[in-house]
Amino acid sequence: MRKLINAPADVVADALRGLAAAHPALRVDPDERTVVRADAPRPGKVALVSGGGSGHEPLHGGFVGPGMLDAAVPGEVFTSPVPDQILAATMAVQGGAGVLHIVKNYTGDVLNFRMAAELAEDEGIEVVPVIVNDDVAVEDSTFTAGRRGTGATLFVEKIAGALAEEGAGLAAVAAVAREVNERSRSFGVALSPCTVPAAGRPTFELGEDEIELGIGIHGEPGRERVPAMPAAEVVDAALTAIDADMPLAGSELLVLVNGMGGTPLIEQYIAYAAVSDWLTAHGATAARPLVGPYVTSLEMAGCMISVCRLTPELTRLWDAPVETPGLRWGR
Amino acid sequence: MRKLINAPADVVADALRGLAAAHPALRVDPDERTVVRADAPRPGKVALVSGGGSGHEPLHGGFVGPGMLDAAVPGEVFTSPVPDQILAATMAVQGGAGVLHIVKNYTGDVLNFRMAAELAEDEGIEVVPVIVNDDVAVEDSTFTAGRRGTGATLFVEKIAGALAEEGAGLAAVAAVAREVNERSRSFGVALSPCTVPAAGRPTFELGEDEIELGIGIHGEPGRERVPAMPAAEVVDAALTAIDADMPLAGSELLVLVNGMGGTPLIEQYIAYAAVSDWLTAHGATAARPLVGPYVTSLEMAGCMISVCRLTPELTRLWDAPVETPGLRWGR
Repeated sequence: MRKLINAPADVVADALRGLAAAHPALRVDPDERTVVRADAPRPGKVALVSGGGSGHEPLHGGFVGPGMLDAAVPGEVFTSPVPDQILAATMAVQGGAGVLHIVKNYTGDVLNFRMAAELAEDEGIEVVPVIVNDDVAVEDSTFTAGRRGTGATLFVEKIAGALAEEGAGLAAVAAVAREVNERSRSFGVALSPCTVPAAGRPTFELGEDEIELGIGIHGEPGRERVPAMPAAEVVDAALTAIDADMPLAGSELLVLVNGMGGTPLIEQYIAYAAVSDWLTAHGATAARPLVGPYVTSLEMAGCMISVCRLTPELTRLWDAPVETPGLRWGR
Repeated sequence: MRKLINAPADVVADALRGLAAAHPALRVDPDERTVVRADAPRPGKVALVSGGGSGHEPLHGGFVGPGMLDAAVPGEVFTSPVPDQILAATMAVQGGAGVLHIVKNYTGDVLNFRMAAELAEDEGIEVVPVIVNDDVAVEDSTFTAGRRGTGATLFVEKIAGALAEEGAGLAAVAAVAREVNERSRSFGVALSPCTVPAAGRPTFELGEDEIELGIGIHGEPGRERVPAMPAAEVVDAALTAIDADMPLAGSELLVLVNGMGGTPLIEQYIAYAAVSDWLTAHGATAARPLVGPYVTSLEMAGCMISVCRLTPELTRLWDAPVETPGLRWGR
């Protein structure tokens, strides 16, 4: 197991210490395992809390900051955060205007966020959950009833975060989060597996010339294993699957070509060139492209393509300023 | 060879097409192989040109934009750009105030940039080269007489870019570039080799439980091959080597923990936690931390640590706004 770690049991704690040391604008509580905006709670602002297993960095802790999340709760690697942890983050950031929980659709995450929401409501805090389930590859999976939540989580966190920053109410913020999820689809491809530190062995095996189409972000099985193919064919397989589920022709798209953690940027740009060609050939426009490793799966090689059918309002919110370790731009 | 590419011969051309499609603020010339700021040339502004072999993305093309480079010239993977290409970029961005060439210290790069500078001077354009040679690991290497240029290239491009953006003259911009190089040191560690697409096999072999200390950014040999060790010991080896060359105690540092391409962000933050601990224990301050894959070596796993001993002026220039695909922040 070739990893730059100290010990498998310390991976999440050590990474959180590093995040805290590198980003003074975040308040990291190593005991509660919460990552919170330094200026939280902000009275009158709807607070956004997300989280899930670690191993997907910069998701979620790297997306805490102005214009995006108020708090993130990292679980162990590929393991849901626990309800008390989610509750602690919710209490730390709530500013009297309610809290949005952004939850990727994995059974453990959904259950634990629900329990935390109930506990928060016992404290008089209004919580609305939004489930992200953008992955068209499989209907159910190892960890999921229904579709998995993957790359579109970034879109939901950014766009809902922008609306909350403007002072919108909880119902409006939840509505735009759901709208983004409904207009988004993803499909991932693995060129290699990844190894959970505590397990010490790869999550699956791939032959030297095999790739796996429709992979999730935890090394769980995808749609099919096929011989290695050129990047343009990989992209065609992914976008054809997305297009079959949500036709793309005529759309203005937010497009993410997402590196899975072990694939370098040069290959992500090669994939993006193919995505751009495909969309042009199919009558769609990549109005807002994003290329980089944003929703990773440890050191898995491969990429995920995520798209969101934009509206003028969603575009405006995507373009709004954001200031987080993982995503930032001004105006 | 598990790569998301179309064909080994098309890697650089396809990646440049992707860069162009994803970033309309760049002007990419696929024939000349230049990446230029869309608003170039800017009359009266000192222009910054850098480049080198591809495979280190986002360096250099991803650092073209306001506050950093005016142009970048990518060679083939791990291969110097050619003089005509460097000349074309120099001509495209020169605005009458001279051009700074930022050159990593590899024999081919140094020669080809020098030839391009001579050709540009024949056209009446003043060119000053600055050589970056920050890597303390080895005195000479496969591709270098003297020390290699690695992570500090990012520091030089950012800080000299900021000064040029403010309207400083060529002598001042060159002086600050040299000052940054002189105050910077780097040391890299590989957990795995990488494979140049055209070669199709790894640049070196590592046993399952071996790592290589003092690696460069082309898979060239480092200082020594040692058994795998915890992240804190890897960091200690790197910072001890740097500290022996340039004592760090009492310094305010710009610190980069740089992912080499195949190492995920969670591990980079684990390394950063160890860096932060080490610096505190040795009386130095990480005044400006940066964690991420900025100067990569294809899909090589591992990290490089780069430091620059800041002054108030260098800090001010580091903090100045920058707007590139690979690095951006406002004020």
